[in-house]
Amino acid sequence: MIKAAIIGAAGLSGLELIRILHAHPGAELGTVTSTKYKGQRVNEVFPELRGISQSFVDHDAALNGAEVAFLAVPNKVSLELAPRLLAQGIKVIDLSGVFRLHDLPVFEKAYGMKQSAPETLAQAVFGLPEAFRDEIAGARMIANPGCYPTGALLGLLPFGELLGSLTMPPIIDAKSGVSGAGGRVEDDSTNFMEVNENFKAYKIFSHQHTPEIEEYLTRLTPFAPERMGAVVFTPHLLPVGRGILSTMYLRFADPADPEEVRERFEAFVAENPFLTLLRPGRYAELKNAVNTNACVISLHPDADPRNWIVLTAIDNLLKGASGQAVQNMNLMFGLDESAGLA
Amino acid sequence: MIKAAIIGAAGLSGLELIRILHAHPGAELGTVTSTKYKGQRVNEVFPELRGISQSFVDHDAALNGAEVAFLAVPNKVSLELAPRLLAQGIKVIDLSGVFRLHDLPVFEKAYGMKQSAPETLAQAVFGLPEAFRDEIAGARMIANPGCYPTGALLGLLPFGELLGSLTMPPIIDAKSGVSGAGGRVEDDSTNFMEVNENFKAYKIFSHQHTPEIEEYLTRLTPFAPERMGAVVFTPHLLPVGRGILSTMYLRFADPADPEEVRERFEAFVAENPFLTLLRPGRYAELKNAVNTNACVISLHPDADPRNWIVLTAIDNLLKGASGQAVQNMNLMFGLDESAGLA
Amino acid sequence: MIKAAIIGAAGLSGLELIRILHAHPGAELGTVTSTKYKGQRVNEVFPELRGISQSFVDHDAALNGAEVAFLAVPNKVSLELAPRLLAQGIKVIDLSGVFRLHDLPVFEKAYGMKQSAPETLAQAVFGLPEAFRDEIAGARMIANPGCYPTGALLGLLPFGELLGSLTMPPIIDAKSGVSGAGGRVEDDSTNFMEVNENFKAYKIFSHQHTPEIEEYLTRLTPFAPERMGAVVFTPHLLPVGRGILSTMYLRFADPADPEEVRERFEAFVAENPFLTLLRPGRYAELKNAVNTNACVISLHPDADPRNWIVLTAIDNLLKGASGQAVQNMNLMFGLDESAGLA
Amino acid sequence: MIKAAIIGAAGLSGLELIRILHAHPGAELGTVTSTKYKGQRVNEVFPELRGISQSFVDHDAALNGAEVAFLAVPNKVSLELAPRLLAQGIKVIDLSGVFRLHDLPVFEKAYGMKQSAPETLAQAVFGLPEAFRDEIAGARMIANPGCYPTGALLGLLPFGELLGSLTMPPIIDAKSGVSGAGGRVEDDSTNFMEVNENFKAYKIFSHQHTPEIEEYLTRLTPFAPERMGAVVFTPHLLPVGRGILSTMYLRFADPADPEEVRERFEAFVAENPFLTLLRPGRYAELKNAVNTNACVISLHPDADPRNWIVLTAIDNLLKGASGQAVQNMNLMFGLDESAGLA
Repeated sequence: MIKAAIIGAAGLSGLELIRILHAHPGAELGTVTSTKYKGQRVNEVFPELRGISQSFVDHDAALNGAEVAFLAVPNKVSLELAPRLLAQGIKVIDLSGVFRLHDLPVFEKAYGMKQSAPETLAQAVFGLPEAFRDEIAGARMIANPGCYPTGALLGLLPFGELLGSLTMPPIIDAKSGVSGAGGRVEDDSTNFMEVNENFKAYKIFSHQHTPEIEEYLTRLTPFAPERMGAVVFTPHLLPVGRGILSTMYLRFADPADPEEVRERFEAFVAENPFLTLLRPGRYAELKNAVNTNACVISLHPDADPRNWIVLTAIDNLLKGASGQAVQNMNLMFGLDESAGLA
Repeated sequence: MIKAAIIGAAGLSGLELIRILHAHPGAELGTVTSTKYKGQRVNEVFPELRGISQSFVDHDAALNGAEVAFLAVPNKVSLELAPRLLAQGIKVIDLSGVFRLHDLPVFEKAYGMKQSAPETLAQAVFGLPEAFRDEIAGARMIANPGCYPTGALLGLLPFGELLGSLTMPPIIDAKSGVSGAGGRVEDDSTNFMEVNENFKAYKIFSHQHTPEIEEYLTRLTPFAPERMGAVVFTPHLLPVGRGILSTMYLRFADPADPEEVRERFEAFVAENPFLTLLRPGRYAELKNAVNTNACVISLHPDADPRNWIVLTAIDNLLKGASGQAVQNMNLMFGLDESAGLA
Repeated sequence: MIKAAIIGAAGLSGLELIRILHAHPGAELGTVTSTKYKGQRVNEVFPELRGISQSFVDHDAALNGAEVAFLAVPNKVSLELAPRLLAQGIKVIDLSGVFRLHDLPVFEKAYGMKQSAPETLAQAVFGLPEAFRDEIAGARMIANPGCYPTGALLGLLPFGELLGSLTMPPIIDAKSGVSGAGGRVEDDSTNFMEVNENFKAYKIFSHQHTPEIEEYLTRLTPFAPERMGAVVFTPHLLPVGRGILSTMYLRFADPADPEEVRERFEAFVAENPFLTLLRPGRYAELKNAVNTNACVISLHPDADPRNWIVLTAIDNLLKGASGQAVQNMNLMFGLDESAGLA
Repeated sequence: MIKAAIIGAAGLSGLELIRILHAHPGAELGTVTSTKYKGQRVNEVFPELRGISQSFVDHDAALNGAEVAFLAVPNKVSLELAPRLLAQGIKVIDLSGVFRLHDLPVFEKAYGMKQSAPETLAQAVFGLPEAFRDEIAGARMIANPGCYPTGALLGLLPFGELLGSLTMPPIIDAKSGVSGAGGRVEDDSTNFMEVNENFKAYKIFSHQHTPEIEEYLTRLTPFAPERMGAVVFTPHLLPVGRGILSTMYLRFADPADPEEVRERFEAFVAENPFLTLLRPGRYAELKNAVNTNACVISLHPDADPRNWIVLTAIDNLLKGASGQAVQNMNLMFGLDESAGLA
């Protein structure tokens, strides 16, 4: 049994990690930390987490022989904590955004902070199993992908070489439930009265996930922003608890044969246990993915097949955060990739 | 035109007051205060309030000839401000809870503070027009009723003398939308993730509106808590923006004739412009009342007519707060009671 | 592996049964029937049910060696089908309401139909494990309890003998998510526009679950309606997908000592794997129970401990329907009671 | 007082028309028809419509001297009814889609029916006051615009000449509340269980509003689909009651100067009473527009100002249907354009 600690266990991603790891056949829930709830039992604070009677401890508690630590803490805390845990020989799966971007000026602009742990960054593997499965298996340090980039990349990567002939950059119009946009944070912007019966875009042309999508799309496909223009990514806030639907618009120089595209996607899906490709005529929708670790994909070629729309649906707390983090843990420790996630 | 100021105009009740008074045929929107937004134009901060281009000013700004001031501020601020405004010759309609209860030990226990303005309390009229219309017309100081008490009293008062023969106290199981339970306040308990897809009771046997219901029920009807027991009032939080539905349970010593009860209610409704009594077989529901100043009532006698259920629905921000406050202003200044509210 | 069939597998309860049985360690998902989707694969119609590639068949298909059949069909269909399946030697767990009431005139009034299968009724065990665990273990025919009665009874039964000294019948003010009130049915009353931002009571003094609560409360406790009056049960429709919160009001002739009551509940909870009693000061809320098979209970004595409020929260599709049905299957086949449900 | 009839008055648009016309200072609510509720009083069926005690009559009732009829009926009914009413000398404002498209093959494909009333089509004016104010004033027959086209066109038209230099067609990613997508219709797709906590696209590349947007964009601006490609329009279903947010993506051959674009929008807004342009940095969101007849617009130039995003928010039942219909009535009868709508 892998002994796993969770740092920042009482936030939404942390609670989801507790739930998954508690029922995981190959892992054991070790230290769980929370500044707010230290000293209190998990199932007393959160009665829905039945049977989990261990107590939260403070963030700086010893991790009692943990082999792996999940970091579900603010960016600044991850930046400081990850190197220290690695130095103690503990593998790290970091859910923050600070170890995903390798262009440092881009990082600093997106996150408003310096990259003070370049050595950790250098060894961090981007934890998207569909793209980096082998590297993850050998990694000690995982930068778990952002929720929006996960939904976007899984709908774009299967196009593969075809992305070299885009005539404009992908336009990603993404809509997220509240847990993907701040969640439990006591912030006016996620107050019920602000979100309920409302819908809005935010951070147009400026969201920190834009360079993340762009970096990995550029590394993994022939997409070239300097030639086609920068990725356009618009996040929106849905009045639902969880889930991200991404509506993505592509225009190719030449028609992309629908059968060929479908075959590319089918091949991609066949290699990856958590992808579902819907049959033609069906539309990926939130409820297909919520409460699962799946990414559900549907393909929509125009009558003029130079124009395509791709839909992906994920649960932002599972495939977009904690589920994917456990998928990465499974790969790092040689377990079945789906263990604890089906 | 009555010149009306709103103190605390950027909260949910205050915004509702702006909306009503801006369109009111007999009143003019005067000073509107907000610490948070002082110096900013109303329609820039809240684009949904079209055409209202005046600016918020600070709370302690001069009220520029206001004849009446609506106080939509925290309890402590009302307690200090109301006497001061009255001394300046400004009539006051206070939406806080501090001038409703006359049993001081009960007040202090319910509100956790001293009643430091007993003279203001002495002249305050409880602004429930259905019970105190004449007194309101002559008042300089109005204690606008709480949202829950409004919904409860309007379903109980029409029973009149019959309440002398209850065998148990009324049980009021009330369910409120979020704007009635804190609203814009940046508090974890009204965060979308806490409220959405959830439902809960709160402050069982301890809500500050219990003594308010009890005081006025005792004053206005033969209900006698020392004989029948204290009113039981349980508030719940609904995942909706606005509206309160109160389900009230009554048990009489003798059968209460359904026709007679209906006649009592019909007579009560006929005298009051904002009450609607549904025909037998229909159930009052939130959507009947939301976005109106009405209280919608339905009567449900059991086959054994000693047992009754009464439902009332109101909009907590209108009949439960700002709409009723303007109804009181109309009465105080001799306008049509419904002016600006239909 | 128990081979289990589901009749009516594409309704909300049926889908929940598919989900549970597919992952159940001791059962195998056999025939699943649906008139609407016959011939289509489960995971094509419902992509969220990943990996379940078998197809729906018509209702009258052979059940291929099933040892147990879950009936998630309309009342009339259950009435006809249950005896037939029993005659074929298949154990039956019926989720409809037709085998729960033993007073035939009461049944006929509540359900508007004749009880045409009295022999099946005679052998049916009411599938509430907390009350009938032993009988369930030996049963061939289970009448799975209604969702509202489950939530009500689990908060009342632990009072045990104390219920003999009630001075009024229990008042059960229950609020259910839409899946407990019709769900997928294409009916105006569950249209989004009718439910969203709305809240309403329905079937006051006439819901078919009232006699169900009353029959079992009378059989299992000293509660005596002929002396105290009939149970008062008011269902309401919440704008959420799932979950039932029941707010229950009790008045005893003599004070019920809070410590003694808590001990009774603790003992009851200790014997039953799916009950959770919250510590004093906490309130059972929907989110504590949704997506689990638990019933979460909180106790609220008044300062005058003759007056009590009890809250229970369940997931109407799990403990209130399909989860409890599988719990019953586990007991009938000698498996661990929690198998597949944790 | 203009005497106005509403045909199909008990649907969502019809009810909104009743509400507006009842309070309209220059119009009088005449005949209101409903097959379902004929013979019943409006305020008994819909208690929220207080004070409206007239009764619904059957669709084919005489219109009792109506000067104008609003048609809020299915497409086929409008097609048959509009010519007949016009022949009786009654002006018609049709909320259906059948008199908006002038390319008959396109119409037939989009609506799946023949255009059987070409003479009515010939005299129909597209009721978008911001584009056709003068023609509306002189019209006897109005084709009231679709909800999505209203939101799209009002964010695109102000670009004016600049649309001649688009390098790709506008991409309109639109999200609508349920009342814009079927509403009261008793259809599985708007059942609460399908919509709540869900989000989905529909009719990708095939919605009947696409040719409507395209026809009027082509007529009113230099946009040329044969050169730039067809408009891309993707509707989505939001779990809210009302409101449409449209996120629109534009790419120009040359940078579009942000100041110049803002000036164009400011000029457009200045001429039209129901448009609001938010200041830079603010985002149009549903709540800015819901329950008003406004279209709220925000402009988002990229750092590379060849790329633009425009957001518009409307209430689909007001500016997207009934509010705009009354705005058209006001213009047709020489009233103040905003009468009854502020």
